[in-house]
Amino acid sequence: MVKLTPEMKENIKKVRVLPLATASKSGIPNVIPIGIAEINDKDEKDDYIHVMNNFFLKTIANMKENPHVAIYVWSPETTGCFQMKGEVVEITDKGNVYSEMTGRVATMKPGLPMKQIVRIKITEVFNCTSGKEAGQKIA
Amino acid sequence: MVKLTPEMKENIKKVRVLPLATASKSGIPNVIPIGIAEINDKDEKDDYIHVMNNFFLKTIANMKENPHVAIYVWSPETTGCFQMKGEVVEITDKGNVYSEMTGRVATMKPGLPMKQIVRIKITEVFNCTSGKEAGQKIA
Repeated sequence: MVKLTPEMKENIKKVRVLPLATASKSGIPNVIPIGIAEINDKDEKDDYIHVMNNFFLKTIANMKENPHVAIYVWSPETTGCFQMKGEVVEITDKGNVYSEMTGRVATMKPGLPMKQIVRIKITEVFNCTSGKEAGQKIA
Repeated sequence: MVKLTPEMKENIKKVRVLPLATASKSGIPNVIPIGIAEINDKDEKDDYIHVMNNFFLKTIANMKENPHVAIYVWSPETTGCFQMKGEVVEITDKGNVYSEMTGRVATMKPGLPMKQIVRIKITEVFNCTSGKEAGQKIA
């Protein structure tokens, strides 16, 4: 049961590129910059982050064998740094989540393959601002 | 046997903050922004990246149980994006590597705890520029 604060959601909007980390089942980490991600906060209990698979290779392979992901939110414009841990709960190219998000993206950034939407449930939030409290769990 | 190209090394210098991904032995990924990293290319066969542990928590725990790491190099100023995979070969608070790097950092950024230097051998390089070749191995 993790809900992001309004400040966290504001900070996500300020960051153009988010580092998305996954790992293979055998523990080889992978990290890539993602440009298309949206917070979905319609659920009462949990917040979700929806990311678009346009050119994922190791990332999507990892997600299929190990649902755990980590993403941090930081740029020179944000208030500090926080890291979200989450679990992939759906990888889909059908349904409302897919059609609504691809509809918005097709208008803003035409020409992308828009293969799938990956729905990630946010399970924990950690501080990653440099300092003694770096790494501490905050939600 | 991986050596970075001069262009890759130039791009690393342009990026102020690098996303460093690790994973626990059980495959939980972690990713944090690191501000203090140096390429060491003195070895004939392999290049190394030295990162400073100031406030690592999950990162250093992961490195101790699973040596695999991933780092990407991208900013609006770089030519494209590349990702390095590597292996932690040493975590030290003694010796030349430690004293030389902490000496440089103490002058530029005084007051940091400078707990350890983590020496990472770069084992593979991948493309992470958005497009059809994203994820391909390049070295």
